[in-house]
Amino acid sequence: MTVDRNDGNEKILLAHGSGGKAMHSLIRDVLGPLIGIEDFNDSAVVPFRIKDSNTETMNGRLVFTTDSYVVSPLFFPGGDIGSLSVNGTINDISMAGASTLCLSLSLIIEEGLPMDALMGILGSVKKAAEAAGVRIVTGDTKVVNKGKGDGVFINTSGIGLVRKGISLSPKNVISGDVVILSGPIGNHGVAVMAERNGLTFDPPVLSDTAALNGLVDIMLSHTPEIHAMRDPTRGGIATTLKEIALEAGACIEIDEERIPLTAQVRGACELLGIDPLYVANEGVLVAFAGKNVAKSLLNAMKGHPLGKNSAVIGRVTGGPERTVLLKTLIGGTRIVDMLHGELLPRIC
Amino acid sequence: MTVDRNDGNEKILLAHGSGGKAMHSLIRDVLGPLIGIEDFNDSAVVPFRIKDSNTETMNGRLVFTTDSYVVSPLFFPGGDIGSLSVNGTINDISMAGASTLCLSLSLIIEEGLPMDALMGILGSVKKAAEAAGVRIVTGDTKVVNKGKGDGVFINTSGIGLVRKGISLSPKNVISGDVVILSGPIGNHGVAVMAERNGLTFDPPVLSDTAALNGLVDIMLSHTPEIHAMRDPTRGGIATTLKEIALEAGACIEIDEERIPLTAQVRGACELLGIDPLYVANEGVLVAFAGKNVAKSLLNAMKGHPLGKNSAVIGRVTGGPERTVLLKTLIGGTRIVDMLHGELLPRIC
Repeated sequence: MTVDRNDGNEKILLAHGSGGKAMHSLIRDVLGPLIGIEDFNDSAVVPFRIKDSNTETMNGRLVFTTDSYVVSPLFFPGGDIGSLSVNGTINDISMAGASTLCLSLSLIIEEGLPMDALMGILGSVKKAAEAAGVRIVTGDTKVVNKGKGDGVFINTSGIGLVRKGISLSPKNVISGDVVILSGPIGNHGVAVMAERNGLTFDPPVLSDTAALNGLVDIMLSHTPEIHAMRDPTRGGIATTLKEIALEAGACIEIDEERIPLTAQVRGACELLGIDPLYVANEGVLVAFAGKNVAKSLLNAMKGHPLGKNSAVIGRVTGGPERTVLLKTLIGGTRIVDMLHGELLPRIC
Repeated sequence: MTVDRNDGNEKILLAHGSGGKAMHSLIRDVLGPLIGIEDFNDSAVVPFRIKDSNTETMNGRLVFTTDSYVVSPLFFPGGDIGSLSVNGTINDISMAGASTLCLSLSLIIEEGLPMDALMGILGSVKKAAEAAGVRIVTGDTKVVNKGKGDGVFINTSGIGLVRKGISLSPKNVISGDVVILSGPIGNHGVAVMAERNGLTFDPPVLSDTAALNGLVDIMLSHTPEIHAMRDPTRGGIATTLKEIALEAGACIEIDEERIPLTAQVRGACELLGIDPLYVANEGVLVAFAGKNVAKSLLNAMKGHPLGKNSAVIGRVTGGPERTVLLKTLIGGTRIVDMLHGELLPRIC
């Protein structure tokens, strides 16, 4: 899909929102040229300058991020759209190496939403913000006619202040870096899919939705040798690693056997016929760090509840650029591409 | 509507999004207690502290605002949801006396939206941002199933830096202040209503959607005697003045004959059976300023294209607190209250 191939009949598909190739094309070919920003998924680092009362000036950098949450259903095992919208935006700021200054909360409510549902969701918003130690400072409410929305959509935007001396970017990733994953994958996507399809697991698979700012604090305090971080949400860890490989111009090699994955999620994915590498996560991060610090960083991460299952899952090598290679459980190697199509629409 | 009167069957109504009394109750009784922020309509001023490389610190203040736009239809005379979403958020920042640092743009697109419509809207986004001299730095795209959205909803959030020495708030409004309106009212609401109902006027009534940051620059450079500013959007100038009267604990007296209003909008409102005082505006502001600067401030405002029809429409008096009084064209006086109900749902 490109702009000049648009024959006037092209329409937006669900796949354009699924975090995979169709969305990347939409952003690259339509949003990018029209708006002038290249990456619609991440946060932006914005330099600014302030003056004090003595006309001295100082330069700062802030991180700005926005996300609209349209998850269906609104409530799922382990969370709801309220907790998801707070945690997800804090995580976007944290992945940029910034500490969260404040969040906004904007509601698009469908006429007829039971007040109890709204209050439940807002209770989750409050609880998630308090758990993360982050303040919501401003908001907005809109109501749309019945049949023109879906319960409630939530936009949370957030501002972070970049830590002094910290600059995280896939562009900083170098050959030799280790790839660390902070916890087991697939829980969020499977929890939402199960709820949507009326499946129950015993014990239930719970969404991993959580704010990663505390874990990131520990990591960045531990070492300056972290080069890039990202949370693998829509499109899963496969899509995230491919994005980083593209931006870094690197080859990332991953060992399937080292990827933390619970037996339950593995079983659920087999049942649903989906690859856990492409399933959304909402409480794990991938970090690229110098190999000399890998061991001590891993130990530091394991000291935090959200990092206790952290593992080194791979490394950056001198292999083919812009490529993700997976060493499979049976000893083969396969190329990992981004998600294409609509595996899990409206997962966040 | 209060939380404790909720019997478990209460549902969200369109009126909860119309900017009037029902929305104020929702915010005061549900959102406020649950989230802990009192005002969901405005921006927030957020203090922060940064360090430079020599460990010196400096304190700054930023303004943070968020708005979701759900206007129906997406395209209307004089603008579309794209221009509206850029201008509206810049205006929220400007009303706080801040200069806009950057905006975010988050799209919730309904499956099936023609790509041409999306490109048209994004073209308007770009044009509006360029006209205002403001950068969009980050974004997000989500797609919802057909029948679960309405074409596209747009959230724009924005960050501003508060000008040195500037502090605008209804709390600063004092008896004797003049009330200045920057231009004729009702154009946006009438333009959208006309489009929605298939009415045409000759010449057409155009939405006044515009970024007010340039006009505000002139005003704040002209005098430090501006105490409060607000843009009368949802709920119209009546609701905005009542909000300010409540927050300031003041009595605001307005002369109906001084309120700029075109013959076309007056006629359209009569035809539609609505009061222009309650009709949404997207390119005018109300300012409260010391009476000694009124004349020169008005002259300064008239030098800007968006202020050329500026007028003093009233004053703050020692009358009954928390009240807006309107001297009508026929010589009477009536109390002006907030909008209640759903005069114009989905006007922005």
